[in-house]
Amino acid sequence: MTCPMCTKWHDEPDLRIAALEQCYVMLNRDQFFQGYCFVFTREHVTELFHLEKKVRAAVMAEVSSVAAVLYSSFAPAKINYELLGNMVPHMHWHVVPRFTTDPLWPRPIWSEPHTAVALAAAEYAQRIKLIRSRLEA
Amino acid sequence: MTCPMCTKWHDEPDLRIAALEQCYVMLNRDQFFQGYCFVFTREHVTELFHLEKKVRAAVMAEVSSVAAVLYSSFAPAKINYELLGNMVPHMHWHVVPRFTTDPLWPRPIWSEPHTAVALAAAEYAQRIKLIRSRLEA
Repeated sequence: MTCPMCTKWHDEPDLRIAALEQCYVMLNRDQFFQGYCFVFTREHVTELFHLEKKVRAAVMAEVSSVAAVLYSSFAPAKINYELLGNMVPHMHWHVVPRFTTDPLWPRPIWSEPHTAVALAAAEYAQRIKLIRSRLEA
Repeated sequence: MTCPMCTKWHDEPDLRIAALEQCYVMLNRDQFFQGYCFVFTREHVTELFHLEKKVRAAVMAEVSSVAAVLYSSFAPAKINYELLGNMVPHMHWHVVPRFTTDPLWPRPIWSEPHTAVALAAAEYAQRIKLIRSRLEA
């Protein structure tokens, strides 16, 4: 059994945003929800309560930083933060800007299927650059 | 505009589990997912990045403690942690034990509607007592 999250940073270089102390930050290839990012731990861990107190606080500080950048970059109505892991247990946070104009608003992103939105390579690069530059600031 | 989360602790005494330093913990009235709890801040705040660093770490420590208790009490396959707030922005975490036997597994809890599962008063009380006693331990 291989874990796709353990190799995601390596496997999808075009979606890399930042390598933080605890987590990697990557753009979701599906940009139906503009700015949707994954924040996932470098280590293969699964539950919040498995983390040492300091590490948990640091992970959440990183999740929070990414959310703040998405909020200031895209001006959504709300950020959704989800740690599920039923299919891929390796801790990965879905950090999702939600807009009142999105067809699923105000329901959860999973409440209805949608067709994935792929961007052109240059558009991915531009969106990633924007998020990365603000995250580093 | 009144916030239902600001008055929830007051309004539904039969679902109260614990008043922690940062958050209230209450059982979800719908127990379709056995053990489903809400962990919500005492203060009316909305985004993780609005919290002062120490407060955010303390909130997440409380979310994590509840998750640990649900995990040891009900032996689910995974805990789901969700902070959405599109409809009710006041910060409330959905902490949801997920079982491989639940009809939606391994999909998110929102992926399909379900009929709410109400318990008898004595069953709510018993479930709450179990969670509370382990949370205090």
